[in-house]
Amino acid sequence: MMLSALDLARRIDAGELNPAAVIDLCAEAITAREAEIGAFAALDIGGARDCAAGSHAALAALPLRGLPVGVKDIIDTADLPTEYGSPIYRGHRPGADAAVVSMVRRAGGLILGKTVTTEFAYRHAAHTRNPHDPAHTPGGSSSGSAAAVAAGMLPIALGTQTGGSVIRPAAYCGVAGFKPSYKLIPTVGVKCFSWHLDTVGLFAASVADVAFAAAAITDRDLRVDARAPAAPRIALLRDARWPEASDAIRTAVETAAQAAAKAGVRVAELTLPAVLEEAWGTHATIRDYEACRALAFERDRHGERLSPVLRAGLDAAAAVTADAYDAARRTTRFARRALAELMTDHDVLLTPSAPGAAPRGLDSTGSPAFNHLWTLMGCPVVNVPGLVDTVGLPLGIQVIGRFARDRAALEAALFIEGAIARR
Amino acid sequence: MMLSALDLARRIDAGELNPAAVIDLCAEAITAREAEIGAFAALDIGGARDCAAGSHAALAALPLRGLPVGVKDIIDTADLPTEYGSPIYRGHRPGADAAVVSMVRRAGGLILGKTVTTEFAYRHAAHTRNPHDPAHTPGGSSSGSAAAVAAGMLPIALGTQTGGSVIRPAAYCGVAGFKPSYKLIPTVGVKCFSWHLDTVGLFAASVADVAFAAAAITDRDLRVDARAPAAPRIALLRDARWPEASDAIRTAVETAAQAAAKAGVRVAELTLPAVLEEAWGTHATIRDYEACRALAFERDRHGERLSPVLRAGLDAAAAVTADAYDAARRTTRFARRALAELMTDHDVLLTPSAPGAAPRGLDSTGSPAFNHLWTLMGCPVVNVPGLVDTVGLPLGIQVIGRFARDRAALEAALFIEGAIARR
Repeated sequence: MMLSALDLARRIDAGELNPAAVIDLCAEAITAREAEIGAFAALDIGGARDCAAGSHAALAALPLRGLPVGVKDIIDTADLPTEYGSPIYRGHRPGADAAVVSMVRRAGGLILGKTVTTEFAYRHAAHTRNPHDPAHTPGGSSSGSAAAVAAGMLPIALGTQTGGSVIRPAAYCGVAGFKPSYKLIPTVGVKCFSWHLDTVGLFAASVADVAFAAAAITDRDLRVDARAPAAPRIALLRDARWPEASDAIRTAVETAAQAAAKAGVRVAELTLPAVLEEAWGTHATIRDYEACRALAFERDRHGERLSPVLRAGLDAAAAVTADAYDAARRTTRFARRALAELMTDHDVLLTPSAPGAAPRGLDSTGSPAFNHLWTLMGCPVVNVPGLVDTVGLPLGIQVIGRFARDRAALEAALFIEGAIARR
Repeated sequence: MMLSALDLARRIDAGELNPAAVIDLCAEAITAREAEIGAFAALDIGGARDCAAGSHAALAALPLRGLPVGVKDIIDTADLPTEYGSPIYRGHRPGADAAVVSMVRRAGGLILGKTVTTEFAYRHAAHTRNPHDPAHTPGGSSSGSAAAVAAGMLPIALGTQTGGSVIRPAAYCGVAGFKPSYKLIPTVGVKCFSWHLDTVGLFAASVADVAFAAAAITDRDLRVDARAPAAPRIALLRDARWPEASDAIRTAVETAAQAAAKAGVRVAELTLPAVLEEAWGTHATIRDYEACRALAFERDRHGERLSPVLRAGLDAAAAVTADAYDAARRTTRFARRALAELMTDHDVLLTPSAPGAAPRGLDSTGSPAFNHLWTLMGCPVVNVPGLVDTVGLPLGIQVIGRFARDRAALEAALFIEGAIARR
């Protein structure tokens, strides 16, 4: 049902498919499911078809082979409306593509549409539904990107994460999500919420697919599909949030750890040192201080057109002092050092990607409580799909790597994904 | 001739002036000199007058007291055109103000106009002339901001620095320039050239003025006018670039050091450790790798409307590999640590702000060769004005402080400015 980017690329290489035919596959799924799911803020199937038809051979020679890509609507596109999930920007057309959009195009990706974001990638939910059960949220804020990949409407989609906006929706929708190291993918042209936290990430069907997409877009050695992954050193992390996790997700993380152990790796147990537990709380301080400034124009000029939750958030954020912010930045620095130290013995940490499966209802996108610290630390994080709860809703395993060791994080995630599948 | 922001604020506090009268002062200078200098890309004297007239009392109670502020045209403004110095963006109106523009407004500043920038804040010079001699460049890329303050057309102006675009024009125009620590002022809404280097800075008549403006805009304890500055620990830095400096600027730096010594401080002599000399070269690697992505849309869609120098720069930049970039980032990290170590014994380093006085001609904005490393290090830098060469052109002293010790850097710069004046 999902479209594997790697599989499509291989079939294009083998001459069995061409970029136009891939767009047809997406268009079929969109016709079948978009009315119910609501993953797209804007679509340009015709434009992508024209590109594909015009340059089959040239596209097929590029890393993304003309594969269709969805772009979260918090990311600027010059050819498609960019509304940031806010009525303030209804019909807005930025003057330029975001850097990552240009990188997608240079890599041979075709922009098929903009995917739904919550308002300014904050908490006010949009209308997108979870493809696994439309009564449930797909998570947020990259709601449309995760849902579109899960529903087979796109092989690759871009998202962003400030709190848990890539990893959580990936978990809820049962797709692979990749939040790279901070600034591995530029945020130029991404509507800013918090400049020390905002991170561009990716969604695809599986870990190997998302690594393929990341490699193509960044022109970096991130692919992990060439050979069986090396056995990673894994630590199972039951930190202070563990009791907040559902029985199902705790069991899922333990199942993943056991499957990895069965596949031959040593799995250590870990608790977080005090400075890292302390750093959980600094995320909100940094986010709020920066959002108060990053969204100052919208609050000061168009406050009445903000959602109540965002307006209240920005009002509260105005009380964060420069001293509190500076102290939070210092704590972050110490915590990063402590994490680097901690991870000399472990390639990745395993924790839940979210407190459980996607909650019922569309009013909330669920809790990012399990993601904040890892966004703040700037380290690469992968959501590994493959496990489900008793009613079939996806449960996500959060695989946390070392800063700037994105390839190692992806390879470890691939190992765990394989161990889960073969358990 | 120049307008002192602090002096104007005090006169407003004393009831001798009101914001509308300050705008009149600016308007007079603009009428007298703008035709020759060409500092503005857009003006909104009427709009600023309306704001000032509507709310004298409310403005006077705010930190900036309704003072007029110029905004470099690389910074987004929703109410004024924002053209980034490029024909690609002729007439462009961004959807939102940049964060720093909202911060100026919140502090009670009135946006009087947009100041001329070189194309995308790179090397292609605009038409602005140096108020001290119109046959000479004002420096760049913040050409209009430095020239407008020097010509008494504005008390405060915003600029940005990726290489030396605040400190060099401040030096050439004989005004105080302040490049704060990296990210002290948000770059949200500033057209990006290089996300690890772009830094928003400020221009004003004197060091105390620029500190006053920075304090008001950032709501931080940065003012240095309340009492005589403490004596800083100073190191005179003759690094590998020293032989490239003109006799006049070398004498000026030595004069500043002697004046400081005469005023009672110890002045040490310093050379840079190898890792810091090495880091000079990494600036270009980081700048080019990031510019290749940050300006990808402009190069890919509108390449024919870029200047030859920028097009050639971006073409060359495309050859910088991710490996070279990662290595440059690592070198930067080591160099920052070495600098922090080096500066445990010194509050500030003294070096030339530029290789000499403003060069004759308008085709080049001069060389940022003395600024690259300090932008890369992210530390606060102040241009101290007050010295001139034999024909009366300004010579700037570059005062380099410790990262995140912006107030100490400003206070040391004030001390040196005073010592020069009293020498």
